[in-house]
Amino acid sequence: MEFSFASRASKLLSSHLHKVNKEERQNSFISLAEELPAEEFFPIKRLGEAARMVLSSDPSVLQYGEPQGYGPLRSWISEDWKRRRGMLTSADRILLTAGSQQAIDLITRLLVDIGDSVVVENPTSPGCLQVLEMQGANIIAVENDLEGLLPDRLEEQFQSVKPKLLFAAPSFSNPTGILWSLERRKAVLELCRKYGVLIIEDDSYGELHFGSEEAASRFSVSYPTLYALDAMDGGNQVLYIGSFSKTIAPAMRTGWAVGDQRLIRGMSTLKQMADWQSSSMNQQILYFLLHESSFRWKEHLALLNREYEVRLKLVLELLKRPGFKEVKYHPPSGGMYLWIQLPQGLHSEALLRASMRLGVAFLPGSRCSPGRQADEYIRINFSRPGREELLLGMNLISEAIQEFTARR
Amino acid sequence: MEFSFASRASKLLSSHLHKVNKEERQNSFISLAEELPAEEFFPIKRLGEAARMVLSSDPSVLQYGEPQGYGPLRSWISEDWKRRRGMLTSADRILLTAGSQQAIDLITRLLVDIGDSVVVENPTSPGCLQVLEMQGANIIAVENDLEGLLPDRLEEQFQSVKPKLLFAAPSFSNPTGILWSLERRKAVLELCRKYGVLIIEDDSYGELHFGSEEAASRFSVSYPTLYALDAMDGGNQVLYIGSFSKTIAPAMRTGWAVGDQRLIRGMSTLKQMADWQSSSMNQQILYFLLHESSFRWKEHLALLNREYEVRLKLVLELLKRPGFKEVKYHPPSGGMYLWIQLPQGLHSEALLRASMRLGVAFLPGSRCSPGRQADEYIRINFSRPGREELLLGMNLISEAIQEFTARR
Repeated sequence: MEFSFASRASKLLSSHLHKVNKEERQNSFISLAEELPAEEFFPIKRLGEAARMVLSSDPSVLQYGEPQGYGPLRSWISEDWKRRRGMLTSADRILLTAGSQQAIDLITRLLVDIGDSVVVENPTSPGCLQVLEMQGANIIAVENDLEGLLPDRLEEQFQSVKPKLLFAAPSFSNPTGILWSLERRKAVLELCRKYGVLIIEDDSYGELHFGSEEAASRFSVSYPTLYALDAMDGGNQVLYIGSFSKTIAPAMRTGWAVGDQRLIRGMSTLKQMADWQSSSMNQQILYFLLHESSFRWKEHLALLNREYEVRLKLVLELLKRPGFKEVKYHPPSGGMYLWIQLPQGLHSEALLRASMRLGVAFLPGSRCSPGRQADEYIRINFSRPGREELLLGMNLISEAIQEFTARR
Repeated sequence: MEFSFASRASKLLSSHLHKVNKEERQNSFISLAEELPAEEFFPIKRLGEAARMVLSSDPSVLQYGEPQGYGPLRSWISEDWKRRRGMLTSADRILLTAGSQQAIDLITRLLVDIGDSVVVENPTSPGCLQVLEMQGANIIAVENDLEGLLPDRLEEQFQSVKPKLLFAAPSFSNPTGILWSLERRKAVLELCRKYGVLIIEDDSYGELHFGSEEAASRFSVSYPTLYALDAMDGGNQVLYIGSFSKTIAPAMRTGWAVGDQRLIRGMSTLKQMADWQSSSMNQQILYFLLHESSFRWKEHLALLNREYEVRLKLVLELLKRPGFKEVKYHPPSGGMYLWIQLPQGLHSEALLRASMRLGVAFLPGSRCSPGRQADEYIRINFSRPGREELLLGMNLISEAIQEFTARR
């Protein structure tokens, strides 16, 4: 029989936002395109010990658990917030999800009707754009500068389209790696309060900040999350999204949302409908790792940040290769990505095709904005590839750019 | 700030199909309301060994994996189908999901536009109804008899509303436990072919069939899945949904969908949007258990079926209590549920309130049909509660019914 897909699914499947990148991945022997953390730093030994402990207890660890997520892990998150980041919340305002992507999908399904306007940063992550497209949102992309979203532009949109939500990733966003200044954070929060716009703050990369240990210890004061700023005044303007995928390991499939109880309850109900619940076993293994084993969470984060900074520095060195002479970029101070503006007239999708012939892939910027506006940019992932891959990969991209510029 | 939920989310949250049963669970010390397998048969020791092996290998087991699911587990499923059930498929036509509930959500998001008609059995599982409600489907409930869906009624609906999908659970459905006859399976498949209606076959309970070992060995011949019947003729009329939640353990969060490649590819893309992917670690642990350890899959299923049959027999004995004199039921030959028709004039929600005051809960039938048609039924779960709980729980329900009948 023939199948006719639902209209929005069909639109998503044929959209430039969704390309089947499986081929891209398989055909290029080096990929700087992924959203992957470095495997060599996964605490696999300690996770193995944690799994052994959890699975040597009562069989109820393998039963269905609380749909909202394992209570002790939710409590641990709220205590960790308080201890390390000076943020206050409680376990009943936290929902555990299958990574941050599911949190984005659930809050969108809960709040967005077809045609509702939603503001995103331009550019923004492909995963977020796909969810909004699928839900039928009217996606409004607002420009950033290096300090964050531009308040004037944001207010113009708030006045003209009255959006329901703002999706923002103020700390090392995917793809740009921008870190919003404190002033900009305050200004955007103020505007959202004034116009009654709920902020969905994706902080998936917020723990990955580089620099000295001293700067790291001040990070949450210098760059408080929008959630923290809002909570100081007792607000409920922000739904916060976090994840262990980039800091512990993706296969734990554990992220979380924190916010007003009505939102968390609504998302919990939709999560039950969507997949009943995430694995209570995995949540218990994570809890054991973080709470009961000798794993040192703070030192683990510091290690990741040192190592990722080394990789970023290597990429910045490699940008001295001849092909990159005309590119522009701003070195990020955290995260996993470098966002590079190509020489004028060069398109990211065309460059990708040429690069893949040489054996290297990256993410074309076109997939990070609803109307392909970012087509003159590319995103390089520096967290996953090791030294050799970065060297070879960046050399090949330089070559591919030179092929284009030589022709002009 | 105030929140305004999306219209369908809002409808679902206030619907009788979704009740916050957390309180119901917590306030009753015995629950016969759950959809839970028996914990004491989880192969926790062997899963512990499998986890140890998987986590003592390369850290890449903790990385993001294939969004479609771990390839060797998909191959194992297709080989198991062939070996034990004489069904043919291949790994590339299988998508691993977070349980069968996610498969239902994904196929519905892929195919159903607001207002599209979808036929379900009356009654049907609350989880399926919630998904259809959320997607804005026009839900048409068609009557069953003990042989399965009534073909005449089905054809009437096919002619009048031209539905896009039929959701069916021909083997031990939740909630009725009905096992469709071979003739009825063939008749329904034929009708769906004639009218071009895709069948979504939920076989979550299909491995739980009771009776002699000899009957068990013939089960897949006597009661072939709709998928198998269709595949024999080379059809693509059926999307099959299976799960390890009831046969291994829910916390593995692993179910699967099998069908036409266009459907599987579409569902994979929507799964990436919904939660990126399920845990590759969990899938590898399952694969190790099933393929490489000394765990005996067939004997494990036989054990479950013997034990569940014992529990069902106890419940049937307990139905001789005075309160049950006027109830009607048909003992199922598999699954996890007994579906009981209450004495005339007694409503399931009212009986639930009375029973909970005595300390026992069950699922009121009203939550299993879109328009509360099944309000004179209750669903009893016999897989999870042990002997003592079944004894006490059934006695308390008998008392609660007597309170009502005494008043008449």
